[in-house]
Amino acid sequence: MYEASVPVFTARLKALSGVLSEAERNAAERRIDPQVFLAARLAPDMFALTRQVQIATDHAKGAPSRLAGLAPPKYEDNEASFADLHARLARTVDYLETLSADDIDGSEDRAIELKIGGRDIAMPGMQYLLHFAMPNFYFHVTTAYDILRHNGVPLGKVVFMKGH
Amino acid sequence: MYEASVPVFTARLKALSGVLSEAERNAAERRIDPQVFLAARLAPDMFALTRQVQIATDHAKGAPSRLAGLAPPKYEDNEASFADLHARLARTVDYLETLSADDIDGSEDRAIELKIGGRDIAMPGMQYLLHFAMPNFYFHVTTAYDILRHNGVPLGKVVFMKGH
Repeated sequence: MYEASVPVFTARLKALSGVLSEAERNAAERRIDPQVFLAARLAPDMFALTRQVQIATDHAKGAPSRLAGLAPPKYEDNEASFADLHARLARTVDYLETLSADDIDGSEDRAIELKIGGRDIAMPGMQYLLHFAMPNFYFHVTTAYDILRHNGVPLGKVVFMKGH
Repeated sequence: MYEASVPVFTARLKALSGVLSEAERNAAERRIDPQVFLAARLAPDMFALTRQVQIATDHAKGAPSRLAGLAPPKYEDNEASFADLHARLARTVDYLETLSADDIDGSEDRAIELKIGGRDIAMPGMQYLLHFAMPNFYFHVTTAYDILRHNGVPLGKVVFMKGH
């Protein structure tokens, strides 16, 4: 359960940080206000880039915390720049480093309680990680990348995978 | 390793089939040629919807096969309609049903050999599944969804997660 969570989230967050760095560089090069990218979205009723990154980190800090029986750290969700988003990603990576395999292994059947759309939901740890947190996490990480690609940032799959 | 692969791929492929069904319904309602959606892409140098679905299924059949020490089944990649894509998804789900936990559990350290960009790469099974196949798989599943959202198909996160 540890291997399927902490190192995966950590690697993806670091890669996402690299994706954002490419976007910053590209904005500077094309003389685009970075706020344009931060506020970009793929559809009017989808979240903008900043919110995609916020939610991705929410899942990355939330899932391992809950599996370990800990309350996830609360963030203020007030990021207003690429620097703020990098700081949020780094803070999350640092937090994940405080969790050990001992904290998380064996949580396959731990009852995880969540509020989803105002409803209380409970599910076993493994189902929560593999069928709820991960698909959600990857959704937001990928959509952040897709928003930037759609806005002409020259990214490739290697950057998505490795961050550089 | 089985739980982290076969049931995850199966659930996501079924949900993707639901996403495609919504797109078909929406195309009919808006009198849009379904080929428009199938050929849609988020950037000129990204793959279109059909190819996103093809690659997603490639990872879904490829990863569990390799973990089990089997050659992945070969597909012809000639899908030309939503019906063809549904058939490809269903065929992949059917194939995954032939793989058991006994085939895949214990493959954490199995040497997986891959050709990536013409280079031969080898990595242990767990690294391959969690740090290569899964991020790639989710990338294409999410991008398929994002393409359709960007084209105005009224999808929500619930459809991405559950397919309806």
